[in-house]
Amino acid sequence: MSNVAWSEVAPGVWRATVGEPEPFTPLSVVGCEPALAGLNELPQAPFPLPADSVSAEVGPRRMVVYLPLAEDEGIFGLGLQFIKVNHRGRTRYLRVNSDPQEDTGETHAPVPFYVSSKGYGVLVDTARIVTIYCGSCTRRDPRRPSRVDPTGQPSAPTPFSDSVEIALYAPGVNLYVFAGPTMLDVVRRYNLFCGGGPLPPRWGLGIWHRPHSWFTAQQVLAVAQEYRRRGLPCDVIGLEPGWQSGCYPSTFEWSPERFPEPAAFVRALTADRFRVNLWEHHYISPLSKLHPRLEPHAGSHTVWGGLVPDYTLDEPRRIVQEQHEKEHLALGISGYKLDECDGSELTPHSWIFPAHAAFPSGRDGEQMRQVYGLILQKLTYELFRRRDRRTYGLVRATTAGGVSLPYVLYSDLYDHRRYVRALCNAGFSGLLWTPEVRTADSPEEWVRRWQVVCFSPMALLNAFQAEAKMPWTYPEVEPIIRKYMQLRMRLLPYFYSAFARYHFDGTPPFRPMALEITSRPQAVAAEEMPLLAIDDQFMAGDSLLVAPLFTGETSRRVYLPEGAWYDFESGERFSGGQTITVSPGLEKIPVFVRDGGIIPLMPALPYAPQAGETVPLEIRHYGTAPGKFRLFDDDGETFAYERGHYRWIDLEVTIAPDGTQQGRATRPDAGWVSSYGEMTWRFIR
Amino acid sequence: MSNVAWSEVAPGVWRATVGEPEPFTPLSVVGCEPALAGLNELPQAPFPLPADSVSAEVGPRRMVVYLPLAEDEGIFGLGLQFIKVNHRGRTRYLRVNSDPQEDTGETHAPVPFYVSSKGYGVLVDTARIVTIYCGSCTRRDPRRPSRVDPTGQPSAPTPFSDSVEIALYAPGVNLYVFAGPTMLDVVRRYNLFCGGGPLPPRWGLGIWHRPHSWFTAQQVLAVAQEYRRRGLPCDVIGLEPGWQSGCYPSTFEWSPERFPEPAAFVRALTADRFRVNLWEHHYISPLSKLHPRLEPHAGSHTVWGGLVPDYTLDEPRRIVQEQHEKEHLALGISGYKLDECDGSELTPHSWIFPAHAAFPSGRDGEQMRQVYGLILQKLTYELFRRRDRRTYGLVRATTAGGVSLPYVLYSDLYDHRRYVRALCNAGFSGLLWTPEVRTADSPEEWVRRWQVVCFSPMALLNAFQAEAKMPWTYPEVEPIIRKYMQLRMRLLPYFYSAFARYHFDGTPPFRPMALEITSRPQAVAAEEMPLLAIDDQFMAGDSLLVAPLFTGETSRRVYLPEGAWYDFESGERFSGGQTITVSPGLEKIPVFVRDGGIIPLMPALPYAPQAGETVPLEIRHYGTAPGKFRLFDDDGETFAYERGHYRWIDLEVTIAPDGTQQGRATRPDAGWVSSYGEMTWRFIR
Repeated sequence: MSNVAWSEVAPGVWRATVGEPEPFTPLSVVGCEPALAGLNELPQAPFPLPADSVSAEVGPRRMVVYLPLAEDEGIFGLGLQFIKVNHRGRTRYLRVNSDPQEDTGETHAPVPFYVSSKGYGVLVDTARIVTIYCGSCTRRDPRRPSRVDPTGQPSAPTPFSDSVEIALYAPGVNLYVFAGPTMLDVVRRYNLFCGGGPLPPRWGLGIWHRPHSWFTAQQVLAVAQEYRRRGLPCDVIGLEPGWQSGCYPSTFEWSPERFPEPAAFVRALTADRFRVNLWEHHYISPLSKLHPRLEPHAGSHTVWGGLVPDYTLDEPRRIVQEQHEKEHLALGISGYKLDECDGSELTPHSWIFPAHAAFPSGRDGEQMRQVYGLILQKLTYELFRRRDRRTYGLVRATTAGGVSLPYVLYSDLYDHRRYVRALCNAGFSGLLWTPEVRTADSPEEWVRRWQVVCFSPMALLNAFQAEAKMPWTYPEVEPIIRKYMQLRMRLLPYFYSAFARYHFDGTPPFRPMALEITSRPQAVAAEEMPLLAIDDQFMAGDSLLVAPLFTGETSRRVYLPEGAWYDFESGERFSGGQTITVSPGLEKIPVFVRDGGIIPLMPALPYAPQAGETVPLEIRHYGTAPGKFRLFDDDGETFAYERGHYRWIDLEVTIAPDGTQQGRATRPDAGWVSSYGEMTWRFIR
Repeated sequence: MSNVAWSEVAPGVWRATVGEPEPFTPLSVVGCEPALAGLNELPQAPFPLPADSVSAEVGPRRMVVYLPLAEDEGIFGLGLQFIKVNHRGRTRYLRVNSDPQEDTGETHAPVPFYVSSKGYGVLVDTARIVTIYCGSCTRRDPRRPSRVDPTGQPSAPTPFSDSVEIALYAPGVNLYVFAGPTMLDVVRRYNLFCGGGPLPPRWGLGIWHRPHSWFTAQQVLAVAQEYRRRGLPCDVIGLEPGWQSGCYPSTFEWSPERFPEPAAFVRALTADRFRVNLWEHHYISPLSKLHPRLEPHAGSHTVWGGLVPDYTLDEPRRIVQEQHEKEHLALGISGYKLDECDGSELTPHSWIFPAHAAFPSGRDGEQMRQVYGLILQKLTYELFRRRDRRTYGLVRATTAGGVSLPYVLYSDLYDHRRYVRALCNAGFSGLLWTPEVRTADSPEEWVRRWQVVCFSPMALLNAFQAEAKMPWTYPEVEPIIRKYMQLRMRLLPYFYSAFARYHFDGTPPFRPMALEITSRPQAVAAEEMPLLAIDDQFMAGDSLLVAPLFTGETSRRVYLPEGAWYDFESGERFSGGQTITVSPGLEKIPVFVRDGGIIPLMPALPYAPQAGETVPLEIRHYGTAPGKFRLFDDDGETFAYERGHYRWIDLEVTIAPDGTQQGRATRPDAGWVSSYGEMTWRFIR
């Protein structure tokens, strides 16, 4: 066992090379470029761990890294975890897996990056499956007093452990440590080191609908028209497997029966202000024209009878990108839903290439499975970058380094509490997650799910199954669904600006309470530690605290951090630093605004504004504290913002000595055509 | 990839060495000596796979073996599997784990040995975690026609695969192939190659009771006396954790508060014809006198705060054996229940040494965890062999090679259907399993569980928990419980003889229907393949077919193999080769006797006969076919049978031309003191 040597590779980010790392890693797949401008804005920080506190051993097959762990330290993150928030005392087997029913650590997005409550983070940049023992194994140390119950009564199964131990089958690895000082700073640093969060197109933050898998073009158009007829907002129509001539495995080609005129179909939807998203997976059917061209570049094993192209090589990537450009993007397709890139060994199906599969590039199945979602995101994202058009899509698997890729995770699991917990956890790990709505057993459940999805990275109704429902399926609650769909649209400028911050300063647009609580100046007391594991309420943007109710609940407890908080709808004031109980009724999801919070709201349009369109804003200020909000302004569609074509409009409320509020907005420079028009200030106190 | 070379190492058993096998394997831990006498009795058979059909690759970390798989071939076994019987199309991750809730392959006893419906078996002798892809991954092969649906409709997730692929992280491995010709012959060959099944002491097949964990000696004695007072049979009282001065971790020392006079306590129970079994696990408490002596020989990590001794070394084994001999066996202890040797990473606890733990012998945690159960069985078994006293105990983890060790597996899972399925599956893999009774939600469930456990390797009531029940807890069904406890005692000569066959000819005493069905002369037709996966009925000994009902059921379907079958109680005749429906009422578990079946029954004594005691027999013959039964006769307690001190008494029924039956029993040679007295023949037709 030997200590590892650290060197600073970006502000507040240190790397240590252990053994001989394999070159194929998540960061290398994404080609992450640290967002240095953002990193330079973060507080300067020294190396956050004691000197020489990290050691490693590299054996002939397995390697292990040992990191320090304090008694009162919590371990957070590790990807899209559905079951736990604080992983202290748990062993996390970080394998990509579509069936994370048990608390093993396996998930669609097992990110080998953790954030400590002590204000530092650790990333293992590997395409190998990693097992992280988060204080779940205890090294024998005769110098350490025994924690065994002195009366002989049963002791804790997992007694105090003073180390995190990381094991993997690899000849070496690059480790990264991220400084804080706060947990949120750690997350920002990680996000920025990976290039910063994605800035979705404005339309991506509108309402999404995915019609039934086997609908024809006519049936899909009818669904879209029904949204417009009813005046319900919708920005994106997503086609499920049946758009293809063959699926499971995929052809990538339009079904001549169901979609005989794809160009006209996409034109019709586009004319009605819809974007079209295509479902696909990358197990290539023998029925596809691409099959013979891809076969020489495919892995040793098939999935669903389809080829698995080795996209780490240029040629197969070029072949598929060319086909996608010509047959999809040229028609106006706005993005993809990248399904089935996670794999499963569970009932009723076993479907994935094995870990020992061989690929032409020399990678094996273990590596490919761990990063396959990343590879597909990058493959499709590049197509849109070339056209200077942003995209926003869905993906079912990802891992470290994918922060900057504009894809939102989803799942088939559908347990609502786990969906909300995942929304909390995603914010630790540079992930976006949608608790998508599909169906419900009751109008109550239908409402509760809609209320949450409208406060998430993607407001998606996925009606692909026979049992799926429409927003108007339960007429008795349709007004509530409508209210939240419209609120989603009204909040677009707020959410869009939150995503811009994700891009520029690394702040996750949706984040767990732990990142909020630990951002206050005073340290977290031992008895407050459970607050860091809150898994059923979260921050949406900087000022909104969302506390969903679940089916069967008529009231719930909500922890409000220090300071005053205001009910988003009624303006009722609550004192923070305590847990309150609310009983909001079905028509309402509890949303609280922090004292001084500024929320810009646009009209409840049926679709997001396009480039060149202008919307008026109602700018709400809550409470009695002064406030600031940075409103992001750009074309909402292209990468022009990367070339400087954007502005931050500073909204500020000051409080005069007599308590009267004044709101001010900076004006962009002359010549800048803003997407925001008239601003009306509203003060709620 | 290169072909592997086979050489015959025992009759019908071939070995191939791939790469450079590690010397530490399950077979080496057990020190298996093939039972050549039994092997020589099996049919001669050629190497059962096509020449050069097995290939392997050994990489720098991972190795893979490829074996052939026919389209209509089923894969059975792989240990104590709770969820599937035919593993075809599934990936089995064979890791020892106490929480096998999902169908991953993980279980308390993941045996890397499978039996093909084609009549051969494959064993991977390794202490490493093995992943076996049972036709669950499909190699790309341009010469093989695509199985993809030609219309583009979704195809099977796991299409036809022509290989079993076995992957592990190891530099090499020894593979074994076992010939048939029948599946039962394969299982016999595997069992005999591993030394043959254990012959339990006769008392081991009686009724077992484990009182509450925290009972005092007085309370335990009261429970035992209550059995005698009620005239309910019981042979073994098993003490749970509270007998120790400290448990979790273990001291191995008697609690001075609860068991102040252990010698007198054991004497009292022994006088009343009870045997005493001790619960323990081998994570050694700092409160134990052994701790300082074992510390130099312990692994790098603790479990439950206790040391994990490296028993692959002589010294720690000697230290613990000496203590056990002096403090337990010398007092009259009859055996052990070896708990917690499986480990878990799941909620609510994570408790096991990690895979990367280091042990003084150079083994690592992965290896030690996989064989830890085997090691503990051997450690304790040796103590009883030295005293020439048989033992029968419980263990919560085992793997390949443990066939000959007299320990029965158990679990905390408690799903009744899974318990019965495990009883079926155990018969493929040289395992013994008890579907132990603990508690029930209703009198019906209580009865249904008792009915099954009385037809299993160990008839155990484990009342260690607060919510546990006694046989008389539900007075309204106590007569039914009593009936089956007494039937268990009556069947002792039958079951004991079945175990003797397990020892001498490798036939499992309890076995799945697949082994019965495939033993008929004609091949299994394709449409009959689902019969091989029957998971809710099983054979108990050679002639009894047991078809349990589960809570909520008033009737069930039972598959009766070819030939006539007779209801064990009523004698009603049923034609086989079909599935019938029975509605037996709560007071009865359907048990069928094969035509010609001979069942020797002793009186329903309150405890098993000791050496030197004689019991009369009622010998039943069912049906109209002639029949034979080999009745095993020995002292029932020592290893004298290994020195030839046993006899087989041949029971035979012949049918005269007029249909009258005649029963005959061979007489052992003069001077042999038989444990069986007067025999009364009873013919049921």
